[in-house]
Amino acid sequence: MGDGVLKFIDQRELPDKVVLREAGTIEEQIMAIRTLAIRGAPAIGSFGAYSLALALSRGEVLEGTYGSLLGSRPTAVDLRNCLDEVALAFVDKGTEDAMEAARDIYERTIEACRRIGKTGARLISDGARVMTHCNAGALASIDWGTALSPIRYKARSGGDPFVWVSETRPLLQGARLTAWELAQEGIRHSVVVDAACGHLMRSGEVDLVITGADRVCANGDFANKIGTYEKAVLAKEIGIPFYVAFPKSTIDGKCPSGASIPIEERDGNEVAFIRGARVVPEGTPAFNPAFDVTPAKYVTGYITERGVFPLEGFLNLIRDSPKTHSSTEK
Amino acid sequence: MGDGVLKFIDQRELPDKVVLREAGTIEEQIMAIRTLAIRGAPAIGSFGAYSLALALSRGEVLEGTYGSLLGSRPTAVDLRNCLDEVALAFVDKGTEDAMEAARDIYERTIEACRRIGKTGARLISDGARVMTHCNAGALASIDWGTALSPIRYKARSGGDPFVWVSETRPLLQGARLTAWELAQEGIRHSVVVDAACGHLMRSGEVDLVITGADRVCANGDFANKIGTYEKAVLAKEIGIPFYVAFPKSTIDGKCPSGASIPIEERDGNEVAFIRGARVVPEGTPAFNPAFDVTPAKYVTGYITERGVFPLEGFLNLIRDSPKTHSSTEK
Repeated sequence: MGDGVLKFIDQRELPDKVVLREAGTIEEQIMAIRTLAIRGAPAIGSFGAYSLALALSRGEVLEGTYGSLLGSRPTAVDLRNCLDEVALAFVDKGTEDAMEAARDIYERTIEACRRIGKTGARLISDGARVMTHCNAGALASIDWGTALSPIRYKARSGGDPFVWVSETRPLLQGARLTAWELAQEGIRHSVVVDAACGHLMRSGEVDLVITGADRVCANGDFANKIGTYEKAVLAKEIGIPFYVAFPKSTIDGKCPSGASIPIEERDGNEVAFIRGARVVPEGTPAFNPAFDVTPAKYVTGYITERGVFPLEGFLNLIRDSPKTHSSTEK
Repeated sequence: MGDGVLKFIDQRELPDKVVLREAGTIEEQIMAIRTLAIRGAPAIGSFGAYSLALALSRGEVLEGTYGSLLGSRPTAVDLRNCLDEVALAFVDKGTEDAMEAARDIYERTIEACRRIGKTGARLISDGARVMTHCNAGALASIDWGTALSPIRYKARSGGDPFVWVSETRPLLQGARLTAWELAQEGIRHSVVVDAACGHLMRSGEVDLVITGADRVCANGDFANKIGTYEKAVLAKEIGIPFYVAFPKSTIDGKCPSGASIPIEERDGNEVAFIRGARVVPEGTPAFNPAFDVTPAKYVTGYITERGVFPLEGFLNLIRDSPKTHSSTEK
């Protein structure tokens, strides 16, 4: 952020190029979110918070701006939680406090992700083979990451983890972004097609699975990138621990269960074309749900900035916290 | 087949172009199998049988030719069974009988696949939504297909089935080949990424799953395209029937269980590049197991040319049959 303009790495260009882009208007910022130039639940929460605060400081109307930003992507709840926090600060105290709220969200997200790493790293024994899905790294959450944070923390403390990266079709966030982040940090890893994960688990090649989340419900169900549910079911069937890592902004205390989470359906052309090349016959329809829901019964533990909890502990944590994100930890 | 040359559709070119190729030497024929220009367990069985018979008629030595062909792909057992049948006919009676054995395999495969369709179609109610994986269609088995045969049969009798086609990374046989076959026949279908299948099953969008097989063991375990195992586990977890369809040539009565099936590992570049475009960062390794094993406990029924059987019935069928493919049904 600088001069009222938001700066970000365009994630569509990775790993080929590291391209820094700027978005100055609400329209440009919404387009950056919608096209996945910026993506990842905590990252779009923080980006949206700044976007709203900047619009308010320019004198734009709260309701319209809030609504447009909120509508840019439906599944990840961080966006709503962070917009709510900025909006509340604005209504209570004005534009300066709205900007202060955005700054606070940004800093709090980084610190939460660092703590997720510290607490989650204890689950990873030396040399352990961790499977992850999509990108829940620094790109998705400003710094550290959610699912990648414990792995990063473990690697920095000399634990030499190995990561199975499922490529994550259709947009290949695993192959393009997670592999790139791990390579930057010198963490051992290998990319596999999504459909190979069950085989690897069954072959004894996986010690634990950690994914991120886009929305965690009041009953512990959560939404995440399409394919996460499959990995959780397979891990349980085979007896491998399955963890989900997320900061508080990803919790939707008002959402009773996974059945209430809106699942974004994106353009079928994301499936039909890969890097510009058509891979299904002309005229064949492609269906493209971007997320799925993993019921709480498949989750071994919830890795949060407050610690790692089994379902019961996590439910206590939610119950003890105020329902809205905006009034917490301040 | 004509003039001692084998003709085949080059499946690597589909769905963009229908290219008919010829392979006249053993080296060309082995390369066609190895590069997946021709693929599918029954198809490479029949192709290999003709390849061996033609080589023998040219006076080439049995052992070397047999060994080279057998080594071209390790997982699908049809190749071994069919080569054995041709070799046995040659040793017993000479080159003409070897050629006759190859012709017989070819015709028997078509008829077996037609029967698989007729018997399997009864499992598909009108308008049912069938999920399949990879390509187990006419391309993979000369005509009719294995997994696709019941769907085709149902469609031809007016039952209007719908097919969920999982794209089948890395080589996209679902998106490229199965979708193409279904479109040719006017059967309703939609392509999805492999990782969306669990979500579709859990959302009530799938009535049954049918896949093909590359090798079925004496205990009912079977190998098939990577990702099949995941679908079987998910189907069982969710309560959706899971069927595997195959002709007798795919049975390996000497293989006690899935643990004994050799799993082909193919070049990691099949994962790292999609239609020529690099999708993982330079230097990132990609691991590429081409098949996985589905234990018998996940199979609702085995669709064969003799009928549809639950595990026990299938085991009786194997026990009652001679162990070698070559001495059956003649």
